[in-house]
Amino acid sequence: MPDMKLPTRAEDYSEWYNQLVLRAELADYAPVRGCMIVRPYGWALWENITAALDQRFKATGHVNAAFPLLIPRSFIDKEKSHVAGFSPELAVVTHGGGEELEEPLVIRPTSETIIGHAYAKWIQSYRDLPVLINQWNSVVRWELRTKLFLRTLEFFWQEGHTAHATAEEAEFETRQMLDIYTDFAVREAAIPVIPGRKSASERFAGADQTYSIEAMMGDGKALQSGTSHNLGQNFAKAFEIRYLDKGGVLQHSWTTSWGLSTRFVGAIIMVHGDDQGLIMPPRLAPYQLVIVPIYKTDEEKATVMTNARKLRVELADAGIRVKMDEREGMSPGFKFNDWEMRGLPLRLELGPKDVAKASVVLARRDRPGKEGKSFVPQQGIAGAVKRMLEEIQKALYDRALAFREAHTAEPADYAGFKTAVETGFALAWWCGSESCEERIKQETKATMRCIPLDQSLGADGSAQANRSGKCIYCDDPAKEKGIFARAY
Amino acid sequence: MPDMKLPTRAEDYSEWYNQLVLRAELADYAPVRGCMIVRPYGWALWENITAALDQRFKATGHVNAAFPLLIPRSFIDKEKSHVAGFSPELAVVTHGGGEELEEPLVIRPTSETIIGHAYAKWIQSYRDLPVLINQWNSVVRWELRTKLFLRTLEFFWQEGHTAHATAEEAEFETRQMLDIYTDFAVREAAIPVIPGRKSASERFAGADQTYSIEAMMGDGKALQSGTSHNLGQNFAKAFEIRYLDKGGVLQHSWTTSWGLSTRFVGAIIMVHGDDQGLIMPPRLAPYQLVIVPIYKTDEEKATVMTNARKLRVELADAGIRVKMDEREGMSPGFKFNDWEMRGLPLRLELGPKDVAKASVVLARRDRPGKEGKSFVPQQGIAGAVKRMLEEIQKALYDRALAFREAHTAEPADYAGFKTAVETGFALAWWCGSESCEERIKQETKATMRCIPLDQSLGADGSAQANRSGKCIYCDDPAKEKGIFARAY
Repeated sequence: MPDMKLPTRAEDYSEWYNQLVLRAELADYAPVRGCMIVRPYGWALWENITAALDQRFKATGHVNAAFPLLIPRSFIDKEKSHVAGFSPELAVVTHGGGEELEEPLVIRPTSETIIGHAYAKWIQSYRDLPVLINQWNSVVRWELRTKLFLRTLEFFWQEGHTAHATAEEAEFETRQMLDIYTDFAVREAAIPVIPGRKSASERFAGADQTYSIEAMMGDGKALQSGTSHNLGQNFAKAFEIRYLDKGGVLQHSWTTSWGLSTRFVGAIIMVHGDDQGLIMPPRLAPYQLVIVPIYKTDEEKATVMTNARKLRVELADAGIRVKMDEREGMSPGFKFNDWEMRGLPLRLELGPKDVAKASVVLARRDRPGKEGKSFVPQQGIAGAVKRMLEEIQKALYDRALAFREAHTAEPADYAGFKTAVETGFALAWWCGSESCEERIKQETKATMRCIPLDQSLGADGSAQANRSGKCIYCDDPAKEKGIFARAY
Repeated sequence: MPDMKLPTRAEDYSEWYNQLVLRAELADYAPVRGCMIVRPYGWALWENITAALDQRFKATGHVNAAFPLLIPRSFIDKEKSHVAGFSPELAVVTHGGGEELEEPLVIRPTSETIIGHAYAKWIQSYRDLPVLINQWNSVVRWELRTKLFLRTLEFFWQEGHTAHATAEEAEFETRQMLDIYTDFAVREAAIPVIPGRKSASERFAGADQTYSIEAMMGDGKALQSGTSHNLGQNFAKAFEIRYLDKGGVLQHSWTTSWGLSTRFVGAIIMVHGDDQGLIMPPRLAPYQLVIVPIYKTDEEKATVMTNARKLRVELADAGIRVKMDEREGMSPGFKFNDWEMRGLPLRLELGPKDVAKASVVLARRDRPGKEGKSFVPQQGIAGAVKRMLEEIQKALYDRALAFREAHTAEPADYAGFKTAVETGFALAWWCGSESCEERIKQETKATMRCIPLDQSLGADGSAQANRSGKCIYCDDPAKEKGIFARAY
């Protein structure tokens, strides 16, 4: 196990990220360019993300299913915006079973088309609606520039696809799922996000409206962390998803789709990580606490291990995810660094003196050094650990929010705007024209991340009274403010 | 919803199966030949299968991960038996991002090769062993003759891949996982299975030894329901998975792989189903009980629904998976048939008279008609339902076992053998020669399913004393008995 230090974030943020992902054994490069292997520690985090979302989806009436990986090439062509958006990114299967196929197949880049085809068959009457289906799978998009978790040829995600009888229901669903992503990000991942509407140029290929949650990473850049699309009747018309309404009239359905991917793992790393490594939010951490037994002699080892095992059982029985580090031939100091790098929220140190005093040392990952250490009696340890995990969860959120607010400006003019997007977000009035948006992007590399749903919030989180202003680029009247930032 | 009856199993077993899968909405045909859509009801069953297995894998120290879908074509060629077995079945990606690829990629037919490549990188020392990884995913094999769940181009499964320091550990792991599949089949799915060793001709391509569990379907044919492979050092040598042992000597690892797929859904359908439709084993059933409220007037409806909702909450709180059928405009009789076809283990009928008497009618799916009906007081209903679900689980297992024993013969000669495999399993001495095995297959269409691990068991489940006999085909001395059957 290499013991070299990570580069600091200030030295090289990108390299800090890459090395951290590899050294914490979250993921590894695959032999095919741009693909990744999600290693067990990374997958355990993803499984916890999955469980937290899946429970929310089911509580709102959604069910899971599985649609095929392979889609006829011709399906992609049926929706005109969709084909324009996805054609350049397709992986194409031309041969199967040793023979050339009559029609090439593509590996799904997303499943609107094949699901649209199925819904057209399954939906006949208003009684069949709504259809509320989600699937957990992987998709393939032939990206040129890739980075582990953030942009890979194959990535893992969930994609929800729903069909409704009315435009209102579809819009309600689209916004409901955005709310679920927001709630998940805030409560489970301790990541403050800005829910908002995308501009036309940033919409999903084939959507009438795209909403997203946007988070600020540790370098001030934005990461789109989940999206929800109102597809209007676009796919219903392309695939003939029709139903007989109560009056016996044939109508096209209204559909939505929404997804959150392994990109979100990248968000967790970049929002919470520090120069020592990862910091896992307790509610999603694969392990919430590591026990490091400390001893020198065999006699000490026997005493300490007996006590350590008892504590492990007690903590695990209370529902805490515990790792016991019993590795031989490694110093406690090495183990401390190793688990700090991997981001376990709490470390429990137990030596012969602790056993004698019936106490333990608990060290918080989010507060390095002495400040984060406390002596805690073994009596009632599970309760103390649970309280501390909740404190850490809250502290991580508060810190991330304070960081975002400190790096979000509401610039008075374009000069101030240009400075703001060097280091963070700019919240700015926008006239709504695509040309202003495009010029800003050309000149500053900052894109319009979203138009926040809550227009009353200022950069520092305070409420604002203004309902209109002047476009930050052209000075024309503007009715909405957007978040602009450089983005992953 | 079409109300036509299923064909009976006696009329057309294959068509009974196909229509049942479609009408119970377990799965549907995809637009690509041989692929399937697993619909929400089928996927809910698969999720319960997944959970029951995953818990067993984790309890024995395994962790999950995710390896890529795309594998360089050249990887498949590295293990000589593997390439021979899988080359004819590959789906090949030749284009990505609009350009022809330098090296074609294949969609994984199974992941030994790409995982072997990763393990070679991750494993350096005996301290890194064992590696115990599983993944839940889908794989693609270009099959010519397909059938929903039983054989599809893309299918869903788990594939475990482990690496060990010694041959003994690898064999222990291989057998442990076979035991886990057996325990799962028996306890969760109520399916009696025969764990055994495959003959050389039926081994996985690249394995030293393949073990399987074999189940008898309702038509007497066999279904291989899970496999566990001891790969020896074959893949370790092909991919250079090596470790430094305690003495500092470089050694090749010993690896295993094991898998269970959505084929198992086919087993559940064909083992338990009857002419009315599916019968779900209670422990895996997406819904264990359906409440069908019965009323005529609005006043009756109000009374019945209030009581029904109270019962639903009480049953759900006790951990029972409950479906309430509130559909309007359908007769109770229609609903009874519909849920029978979908195989819910229990039906709770509640009409105004039941409300007045504070009782309900419970109807068992596995015992049609009056025999399966009982009046049960609402007081203590959850306990009564749980006991009944346990009884049904046991009754399904007992019935399947009795069926298998009634359709398994231990023929005295080859003429008897030929008759036996017309309707079920033949347990017969085999000399071990591939030519006898091949001739039997040519002449009877029966293949050697497995050599049961427990050689003392007779066809009727009784213990047998004989430890040797004469080959059923050539009369040469034989030391082992095999199960021969026609198979899916």
